[in-house]
Amino acid sequence: MSNSFGTLFRVSTFGESHGRGVGAIVDGCPAGIDLKEEDIQKQLDRRRPGQSDLTTPRDEADLVTILSGVESGKTLGTPIGLLVNNKDQRPGDYGEMSQIPRPSHADFTYQVKYGVRARSGGGRSSARETIGRVAAGAIAEKILRDRWGVEIVAWVSSVGSEEANSIDAGQLMRNHVDGNLVRCPDPDSAERMMRLIREVRDAKDSIGGVVSCVCRGLPPGWGEPVFDKLEAILAHAMLSLPATKGFEIGSGFAGTHMRGSQHNDPFIQKGDHLGTVTNRSGGVLGGISNGEPVYFRVAFKPVATIGQDQQTADFRGKSVTLAATGRHDPCVVPRAVPIVETMSALVLLDLALRQERY
Amino acid sequence: MSNSFGTLFRVSTFGESHGRGVGAIVDGCPAGIDLKEEDIQKQLDRRRPGQSDLTTPRDEADLVTILSGVESGKTLGTPIGLLVNNKDQRPGDYGEMSQIPRPSHADFTYQVKYGVRARSGGGRSSARETIGRVAAGAIAEKILRDRWGVEIVAWVSSVGSEEANSIDAGQLMRNHVDGNLVRCPDPDSAERMMRLIREVRDAKDSIGGVVSCVCRGLPPGWGEPVFDKLEAILAHAMLSLPATKGFEIGSGFAGTHMRGSQHNDPFIQKGDHLGTVTNRSGGVLGGISNGEPVYFRVAFKPVATIGQDQQTADFRGKSVTLAATGRHDPCVVPRAVPIVETMSALVLLDLALRQERY
Amino acid sequence: MSNSFGTLFRVSTFGESHGRGVGAIVDGCPAGIDLKEEDIQKQLDRRRPGQSDLTTPRDEADLVTILSGVESGKTLGTPIGLLVNNKDQRPGDYGEMSQIPRPSHADFTYQVKYGVRARSGGGRSSARETIGRVAAGAIAEKILRDRWGVEIVAWVSSVGSEEANSIDAGQLMRNHVDGNLVRCPDPDSAERMMRLIREVRDAKDSIGGVVSCVCRGLPPGWGEPVFDKLEAILAHAMLSLPATKGFEIGSGFAGTHMRGSQHNDPFIQKGDHLGTVTNRSGGVLGGISNGEPVYFRVAFKPVATIGQDQQTADFRGKSVTLAATGRHDPCVVPRAVPIVETMSALVLLDLALRQERY
Amino acid sequence: MSNSFGTLFRVSTFGESHGRGVGAIVDGCPAGIDLKEEDIQKQLDRRRPGQSDLTTPRDEADLVTILSGVESGKTLGTPIGLLVNNKDQRPGDYGEMSQIPRPSHADFTYQVKYGVRARSGGGRSSARETIGRVAAGAIAEKILRDRWGVEIVAWVSSVGSEEANSIDAGQLMRNHVDGNLVRCPDPDSAERMMRLIREVRDAKDSIGGVVSCVCRGLPPGWGEPVFDKLEAILAHAMLSLPATKGFEIGSGFAGTHMRGSQHNDPFIQKGDHLGTVTNRSGGVLGGISNGEPVYFRVAFKPVATIGQDQQTADFRGKSVTLAATGRHDPCVVPRAVPIVETMSALVLLDLALRQERY
Repeated sequence: MSNSFGTLFRVSTFGESHGRGVGAIVDGCPAGIDLKEEDIQKQLDRRRPGQSDLTTPRDEADLVTILSGVESGKTLGTPIGLLVNNKDQRPGDYGEMSQIPRPSHADFTYQVKYGVRARSGGGRSSARETIGRVAAGAIAEKILRDRWGVEIVAWVSSVGSEEANSIDAGQLMRNHVDGNLVRCPDPDSAERMMRLIREVRDAKDSIGGVVSCVCRGLPPGWGEPVFDKLEAILAHAMLSLPATKGFEIGSGFAGTHMRGSQHNDPFIQKGDHLGTVTNRSGGVLGGISNGEPVYFRVAFKPVATIGQDQQTADFRGKSVTLAATGRHDPCVVPRAVPIVETMSALVLLDLALRQERY
Repeated sequence: MSNSFGTLFRVSTFGESHGRGVGAIVDGCPAGIDLKEEDIQKQLDRRRPGQSDLTTPRDEADLVTILSGVESGKTLGTPIGLLVNNKDQRPGDYGEMSQIPRPSHADFTYQVKYGVRARSGGGRSSARETIGRVAAGAIAEKILRDRWGVEIVAWVSSVGSEEANSIDAGQLMRNHVDGNLVRCPDPDSAERMMRLIREVRDAKDSIGGVVSCVCRGLPPGWGEPVFDKLEAILAHAMLSLPATKGFEIGSGFAGTHMRGSQHNDPFIQKGDHLGTVTNRSGGVLGGISNGEPVYFRVAFKPVATIGQDQQTADFRGKSVTLAATGRHDPCVVPRAVPIVETMSALVLLDLALRQERY
Repeated sequence: MSNSFGTLFRVSTFGESHGRGVGAIVDGCPAGIDLKEEDIQKQLDRRRPGQSDLTTPRDEADLVTILSGVESGKTLGTPIGLLVNNKDQRPGDYGEMSQIPRPSHADFTYQVKYGVRARSGGGRSSARETIGRVAAGAIAEKILRDRWGVEIVAWVSSVGSEEANSIDAGQLMRNHVDGNLVRCPDPDSAERMMRLIREVRDAKDSIGGVVSCVCRGLPPGWGEPVFDKLEAILAHAMLSLPATKGFEIGSGFAGTHMRGSQHNDPFIQKGDHLGTVTNRSGGVLGGISNGEPVYFRVAFKPVATIGQDQQTADFRGKSVTLAATGRHDPCVVPRAVPIVETMSALVLLDLALRQERY
Repeated sequence: MSNSFGTLFRVSTFGESHGRGVGAIVDGCPAGIDLKEEDIQKQLDRRRPGQSDLTTPRDEADLVTILSGVESGKTLGTPIGLLVNNKDQRPGDYGEMSQIPRPSHADFTYQVKYGVRARSGGGRSSARETIGRVAAGAIAEKILRDRWGVEIVAWVSSVGSEEANSIDAGQLMRNHVDGNLVRCPDPDSAERMMRLIREVRDAKDSIGGVVSCVCRGLPPGWGEPVFDKLEAILAHAMLSLPATKGFEIGSGFAGTHMRGSQHNDPFIQKGDHLGTVTNRSGGVLGGISNGEPVYFRVAFKPVATIGQDQQTADFRGKSVTLAATGRHDPCVVPRAVPIVETMSALVLLDLALRQERY
């Protein structure tokens, strides 16, 4: 239970990794919005596996169908049903794992929690689960852009210890990010990252990384004190993504080293409104957007499924060697970029609708 | 809106910093539990201001009254009303600020969002808002301890750049933490931290820090995929606390540097159950507790209210110098320790009740 | 669990019949609204016991205190804490009942559900629980009236078999309703009803009745298909009141006898908008208000607590005679009038805020 | 917004009357339950149009597909996606109505609320919307039956003024109900009802009716005071069904005529537990099941869409004659029987899971 997210713009997702299909219902989408399947497909294409040699070879077209809620290219205000069929099902890949829980994977906890597991692995813990979110979030993005001019751009800021050189988030666009396979807008950094991913892939290993994200154009006033602060819901959203281990907004952990006199963002008149000189707050004050860009970073661990042999124990506690054979990404962060963006859009649109009329 | 937290064990809080009182309603508390006001008072005492020269001089006894839901020392299963009266109200302190939004404080965003503000500052953005959470969380803690043996211990692991020497979280108890004013269980580290806080205080400045927390004794199975993963709800809870900027669980951001083959936690038989050799996962797999300790870290920025003059702008955009006169903590992390603990308890008990019968 | 009601205007209530106090937190109240304790007190006074010889002699002033959320007579947008102290506590009255569950009362089910009960009877099943609702609903009423001109008027339309003569709901005002003790706006009918109540009271018995309610001035568009239809939420609200057994809107059960050609409400231009010639729909079409008055009726059973001896069984199943001695109303409908009104206001304001900006 | 229902067993539905398909996601279904598409299909077959000459001639097989959440015939604990394709789409039928809102239909209110409407009528106000509920509720029924032995049986107790002769709800089974086309278990009454429906149908008119329902086998303890009383949630559920105008539980409106001394249900030992001699309460005390059968009645108005000419106004207020040509049922109650049953199951299972472990 808890396959729904959002208060006024609410997405409910369904679908196992190797079942008939995955999808979502989007409830609370305003009526009268122009919406076509292509609007959604774009982000699904950026998320889908098999895009390059950096990602899992599992090949899925991931074509979305709108089942309801849209007529003649306009939303009706009724729930939008979204379906993506699964094509490339290979349950055979996962045979051995029925007895051996993969280390750092959800096989063990699903078995304990439910007393039963999808044959083919972690079921809903699969990265494939994110398709429903991306499809729904692509709708949210469109609304945020069309109605408020909000732009959300994520990028890979590190792979392992390879950190991106300084990026100017103020002007960054998605086409910059998509200029290379690893989705790091600095070409030199991207080169280093891709080299590392290929090395890791060839070693049948995996590697972690960090996705950064900026959301520009929010008006002040979005976010609900006390428990639904903008950063709290963002953190919730990001830590609900598979393989995430950390979230920081604005100055983040580095900001704990600073003094208040250095860290505070002084106010200043900017054109017709009050802005801040610096933005260590990351666009939020007291949980409410202040009109400056919201920026944050998300830590992704190295994928648990690896091609190397692993010493571990089976479900009965017997020591065994596990040789994983399922297909996997050596590094998830390039494909995580559209997931972080669309998930952010779900957060922001929901808070927008709680504050403003569409 | 959003002054409630939790699904089955649900707390709703109320109260401004300088109004008549603050408090909470706890809905969903199981019936038949032994509960006295002292059970709650203990954590309120650890949270209250005026404890030492390291904290704000505002003096509040913060005595809690149980208004309902308990009879003859037993919970009835009905909502528990909790009230703490405000005593030391000095609205006069905040006069100048009605025209000047404090930098990095919620004055500005509350004004924009609501078109009106509590005279005396940020209203619900005050640290005083956390009293309702702590009172409710103290009840949750007691239930977790009595029913499942869950122990939650938080401590200060850094103040500014003063990092604590290595702490063994496996055995750490609250009396170790409370052995010094800064609530760092390593005495040498504590000494360094306290020196820094006093230096900052004397400079009329503030400083950030990190609170670490371990939750021991959870059975496997707590946490709800997809959107209500244990770490997602924890992140939500922590980023909803005033002044927080980051959250990481298990290996966190450092884990992004590792390879899967190093990062994975192999399984091993531990007595009568399956455990893991290492715990880089921080006690969660796929959003569900795996039986290992849950540990995480929370970043607190330096308090925005400082005693130094600050160059900033007033609400009309005019450049001004603000000399803050309100009382404040030079560093919030010592008092944040019981807040992090009780907030964790709210998260864990809610997930426990979603998985298990009381 | 479930002591909260509403999505965007949300009330959470607490308090046992004979504990320290009862009250509520109202979350989601718009900021900047003029609000004084008197605004709330008016409906509490109409609800309070001891108003006349028709009601329970339990005497409670039921004075409300606003604990938070209001400053200088304006709402802050933060939660409004509301407290009413219990004064006239007589737990002694209920001694015998600890062994004998009162017939048709909640003593039995609370004991089974919670394994424990408030000494003094049904705890939250007491009519006293409705104080929190009335206080919160009085705020909702004020907002509906000030912002949209919505008027809500309830009245007693039957007591036992004494039915009120025809009432013109189109112009009915609260002062008409309060023109007599039984709150039936037709004086002759009121006379018959009061005679019956006094007869029943003298026989140490109780009697049921029906409260009718009209809500005028709603714009079209309030109510959310599919599950949160206006009539569905109203029915939920009304059946959550103590002692209610039925709800009907518009033509109700009588409408089932009609043919579509008779029952349908034809459209007609009314001034600048489309209205209907008749209003058998009771102001809703497809769960959404259509701009015509919303009217509905609520059935209240005879109060379970009576002064006569009753043959029943104790908790162990032994046949016993129960002579109830607690104070009670011979007929709840006169005091139910403000409860139905304020509960309707909670429903309508919540749906209003889901549809419109305040 | 509000296409979801339930707290722990939660159904979210989607789908317009004439779009690609309708369906639901069921979240919170316990794991390890035997479930096949046939288990669901049975109730869909009882609900589907075109069953006899008493129902709409629209012909839909309404075959359900399980998209996710079930593997090898067992539920996984993950969301169950359910899809029913629409086959018999005839948007052409509804041409005239784009300018003329059908009297007592949702055309008008959808247009006002959303500013746009499904071409083909009321969209989500269509009876076709109930397919998702029935499919989800059929799962809930199975769990209630297998786990707790709960039996839910609804039947037609009146059509227009044709009331059923006395029915013994204590032993009533679905095969008795399905013994005739009108689903009234008393053959003589059924005969009278069917005669009336055919007469109404031939007159191109429609007629209302009442569905009664009994739920047997609930243990005491289900239902949550204060706002989520069993009867409150049932009333909510029933009034959320299309065309419903009233709900009563136990003695209902008739009970308002009684005195407490007549109405109260005395307790009595029944085998190993405490029961009641009579059951005017309808199985609930203080909102909590008391172990006696829950019984209630639901009023359905005559269907708004009729084949006769109607004098009304178009959207611009111009007086017009509307000759409806869409297919419709002359009386909805026979097909409403499985809808009332499955909707009851959604209510009961949700309350069961809030009280008990599966």
